[in-house]
Amino acid sequence: MTESNEPATYRTVRWVGDSATGWLRLIDQTRLPTEFVEIDCSDVPAVWEAIKTLRIRGAPAIGVAAAYGAVIGARSQGTDDAASIRRALCLATSYLRTSRPTAVNLFWALDRMDAALASVDHFDGPAMLDRLLVEARKIDDEDRAMCRAIGRHGALLVEPGQGILTHCNAGGLATADYGTALAVVFAAHEKGTPLRVFADETRPLLQGARLTAWELVRRGIPVTLICDNMAAQVMKEGKVQLVIVGADRIASNGDTANKIGTYGVALLAKAHGVPFYVAAPSSTFDLSIPDGSAIPIEQRDPREITHGFGRQTAPDGVEVYNPAFDVTPADLITGIITEKGIIRPVNNLAIHEVLVS
Amino acid sequence: MTESNEPATYRTVRWVGDSATGWLRLIDQTRLPTEFVEIDCSDVPAVWEAIKTLRIRGAPAIGVAAAYGAVIGARSQGTDDAASIRRALCLATSYLRTSRPTAVNLFWALDRMDAALASVDHFDGPAMLDRLLVEARKIDDEDRAMCRAIGRHGALLVEPGQGILTHCNAGGLATADYGTALAVVFAAHEKGTPLRVFADETRPLLQGARLTAWELVRRGIPVTLICDNMAAQVMKEGKVQLVIVGADRIASNGDTANKIGTYGVALLAKAHGVPFYVAAPSSTFDLSIPDGSAIPIEQRDPREITHGFGRQTAPDGVEVYNPAFDVTPADLITGIITEKGIIRPVNNLAIHEVLVS
Repeated sequence: MTESNEPATYRTVRWVGDSATGWLRLIDQTRLPTEFVEIDCSDVPAVWEAIKTLRIRGAPAIGVAAAYGAVIGARSQGTDDAASIRRALCLATSYLRTSRPTAVNLFWALDRMDAALASVDHFDGPAMLDRLLVEARKIDDEDRAMCRAIGRHGALLVEPGQGILTHCNAGGLATADYGTALAVVFAAHEKGTPLRVFADETRPLLQGARLTAWELVRRGIPVTLICDNMAAQVMKEGKVQLVIVGADRIASNGDTANKIGTYGVALLAKAHGVPFYVAAPSSTFDLSIPDGSAIPIEQRDPREITHGFGRQTAPDGVEVYNPAFDVTPADLITGIITEKGIIRPVNNLAIHEVLVS
Repeated sequence: MTESNEPATYRTVRWVGDSATGWLRLIDQTRLPTEFVEIDCSDVPAVWEAIKTLRIRGAPAIGVAAAYGAVIGARSQGTDDAASIRRALCLATSYLRTSRPTAVNLFWALDRMDAALASVDHFDGPAMLDRLLVEARKIDDEDRAMCRAIGRHGALLVEPGQGILTHCNAGGLATADYGTALAVVFAAHEKGTPLRVFADETRPLLQGARLTAWELVRRGIPVTLICDNMAAQVMKEGKVQLVIVGADRIASNGDTANKIGTYGVALLAKAHGVPFYVAAPSSTFDLSIPDGSAIPIEQRDPREITHGFGRQTAPDGVEVYNPAFDVTPADLITGIITEKGIIRPVNNLAIHEVLVS
């Protein structure tokens, strides 16, 4: 574990070393905002644990971490024998798929790693591993580029002086770099557009308070932290003109799974006439499912709610419901900001047109 | 301070002793659910502090505590001289009025104490104090009776098998005994109506997790604890057929101030076609104001949000918005359950008819 003071710049996830014998380094997001700690993962169980326990989280960042995790897995039975590498990669990707069920980027990235290996089936072991590292780096680099493109497209939506409400963290910490929903904020801010973000703290794990507020404070962007149950009130007071959130999986019709509470925010935005946008790369779309009812929703440990931050805050014996995500129906979504452009209105046809253009 | 194991029965607030020389004992609700601790208040600053810091909270309970606090204040300059008692009561009630701005029951109870003294202006000192204690006990006893009546009226709304969502704590801990919103639940449960409560944890101070869940678990009533941002999802899943919340102040037209987040819950209930009821005694109505825009909203310490669980969960330097209450417009309220009956629909005329009947 590498513990350090908070650096001027940071990378959410990165590969250390120039070859497939390197390792994965990531910011342990469970320690933010009070401690900036990076951890190194050099075996697959460590990567799996980091994803499972949300040391790394955010659909695109999970995809990148899993891709590097696949490289680590592929070499785990030796670097010379092609057959061993094939078996080891298969085991690793199968295992990593079990870390979290909702974010589709995890499966998308691991599919790419499997396909990359299949495309070099005739290579020798070291060349195979090199090809896998190239693919993982490509997923990483593409994610960075996609985030910048999302920022460019989305910044056109932001008018000077607007209040932008966001839920959970869809920032640089949720991606390889720069974010999705926050990419729009960053890009607008970099253009000089004055704005203020209202960050839902996002119970139970407070990604909004811990991560979104941290990213915005670091960049000097005005941010007001609120409890999730205050979103309706700040909308009623006219403080919010735009809602932008990230996504963990988007169905063919635009139904969007995102952090629990997003669906409620979408309903509140509708009630107050505030446009509600989702920002996500094309890798977040799952065109194999017709609508949101097919998206599996992860249920998490009740103790995240009853013992959230080192203290018991509910009585022994209470039942708890703790879904990690909810699904916002497409008809509550004004538009989806992707790296290929803004999908608006949100429906099968418009999604198809933008994604395959 | 009296620390004890959790008793079989408890009283939120009570007068210890048979005369005006007694003192106020109350459960320190900031220590629940993990510690059951009662504290004794024998001077006005202690009562003020207990209200300000939410050791005692809930509009009706605040009223009862303030009434006993007025007795303590009245005797503080001596128990013989009528003029001293008059001055001391005036000082005490003026000071106690500054403890919290939103709950109208505080002002209502202190007005009653002032009026009680005015009605015995010719009494000697000890008799004056006796009269004040009688008035405070009356406010206490009336509150108990009102809660039971609210339970009786409200229980008629509950169908077998329903899920009832509540926000914050409007239970026995928010009143002298038995509660308002939870009185409906308790009364229905005592009649044998099967039901399940969904308790919003209610950030920032988690009264739902700490207090509502505690009261329900103690009574063996099925309760599922959720984070505030999960309310929309449990409604979408068809788990909730009724919402009942308490109130801190209700304007002439029915606009209702209650714990922050209530307004959002009302909007979500409307979106899902779920009836939304307020339960409150008539002392919670403030007929001096036409609508909710005249209700002052208390702003509380940002650290309740940034350092809520004994740990810092937001970065240094972040701005915070922390209103303690919001106002739910009358048109989102299906009915108001009072000790005099159910006001439905909610408007000036119906309120007038029920309250003055």
